[in-house]
Amino acid sequence: MPQTIFQLFAEHRTIRHFLRKPLPENDVDRILTAAQRAPTDASAQMYSIIRVTDTALRDEIATLSGEQQHIRDCGEFFVICLDVHRLDKLLKRRGTRLGMGPRVSILYGTTDAILAAANLALAAEAIGYGTCFIGGVQNRIDRLSQLLALPRGVLPIVGLCVGVSDPDWIPAQPRPRLPKAFVVHENGYRLFRNDDLEAAYTAMAPISRRKDWFPTLERYFAPDGTMARREAVMAAAWRQQGFEPEG
Amino acid sequence: MPQTIFQLFAEHRTIRHFLRKPLPENDVDRILTAAQRAPTDASAQMYSIIRVTDTALRDEIATLSGEQQHIRDCGEFFVICLDVHRLDKLLKRRGTRLGMGPRVSILYGTTDAILAAANLALAAEAIGYGTCFIGGVQNRIDRLSQLLALPRGVLPIVGLCVGVSDPDWIPAQPRPRLPKAFVVHENGYRLFRNDDLEAAYTAMAPISRRKDWFPTLERYFAPDGTMARREAVMAAAWRQQGFEPEG
Repeated sequence: MPQTIFQLFAEHRTIRHFLRKPLPENDVDRILTAAQRAPTDASAQMYSIIRVTDTALRDEIATLSGEQQHIRDCGEFFVICLDVHRLDKLLKRRGTRLGMGPRVSILYGTTDAILAAANLALAAEAIGYGTCFIGGVQNRIDRLSQLLALPRGVLPIVGLCVGVSDPDWIPAQPRPRLPKAFVVHENGYRLFRNDDLEAAYTAMAPISRRKDWFPTLERYFAPDGTMARREAVMAAAWRQQGFEPEG
Repeated sequence: MPQTIFQLFAEHRTIRHFLRKPLPENDVDRILTAAQRAPTDASAQMYSIIRVTDTALRDEIATLSGEQQHIRDCGEFFVICLDVHRLDKLLKRRGTRLGMGPRVSILYGTTDAILAAANLALAAEAIGYGTCFIGGVQNRIDRLSQLLALPRGVLPIVGLCVGVSDPDWIPAQPRPRLPKAFVVHENGYRLFRNDDLEAAYTAMAPISRRKDWFPTLERYFAPDGTMARREAVMAAAWRQQGFEPEG
């Protein structure tokens, strides 16, 4: 188990194979307490965490998220949501109401939700568990919102698997990252030249067996990719959950 | 200095008063390395960090963000941005282009940006620095994007002050949080009853000298509050930076 937070960061890798072992309730409580200690804008805590313990519900979420077996196998599965519904209820209880628009809600709510999710994952890794964020919950976020009985003002942002890593499937190496100079800019954005882009491809090549980053990027991000297909579902879900910008 | 990540979480408090001391470059490098180790969707690293070292630029950002003196005083100030511009350039270099829509870009880009920001802040706190997230950078995010020369596809999400805490101004206690049962739900969202809402107000009362959470919530989140005024600016900035949902 890493001894310092810097070792924890350096050794981080995503785990996609879990043993079917439950977590002691005390560990679940510790990691959820850590999540709640995250910074939060104006102390408003604009997020909720849905802990999914029901086997049938897990199974359905695994299917909706693109057949991700680790959602079924992991000891604990959480859906982290932005939540401005609670804030609206609190304000109404004192005679006013939530007055912020959809863009502000999305931006600050997602920020609060992910700050809590980051603490949750890091606390789990500090105990020795494996973790895997699930962006694929967005595949059918409209249906997922219904399955979790989310009221208007609540929107799933990301899933998180936590569990005992299958020792046969722990990645040998952490994934590569871009050179720091392409991610960190000083005082203003530095545009990329062609040789920068080639250097970025070279740095990220170890990500795939073919030693080429491009097929991964194309599969996810090109016009026919996974991400493009999610836009219409997200538009429907944002409308359904009360976050559609009026245009 | 906290010895474990759990102490770090438990002792977290936001610092708004810094000594005017620079950080050793080695510490800056360590915290930026930690940020880069954060999980990232499909390894795409859809974020950029603008390190603001220029004094005049800091001063202008402090003013735009609502006269936040700690932006001027802290040793290091970062603006964490979602970035799909770099991804578009990488795809174009191989003959295709970014195909995802504005909602997908906002959601995944903000998630990547905040996971990196969380690591950055935690690494800084682990070394012993104080940190303060600055949601107020959204006040004039349209103007801020121009000041930082952000191309289309890049949008500021949050600011982050890192520095040597002024020992005279370290808050005595961490801020209160809502009872866990109001933030964590099991298998589905549990709606709040009036007595839950009152319990939430009671739990959060220590946040203000008047022992009342409502004035804070009202000032930020009611129809005439700070957050409501940000919607129109964000709409303009989303359009300017290429993220406007087509409606």
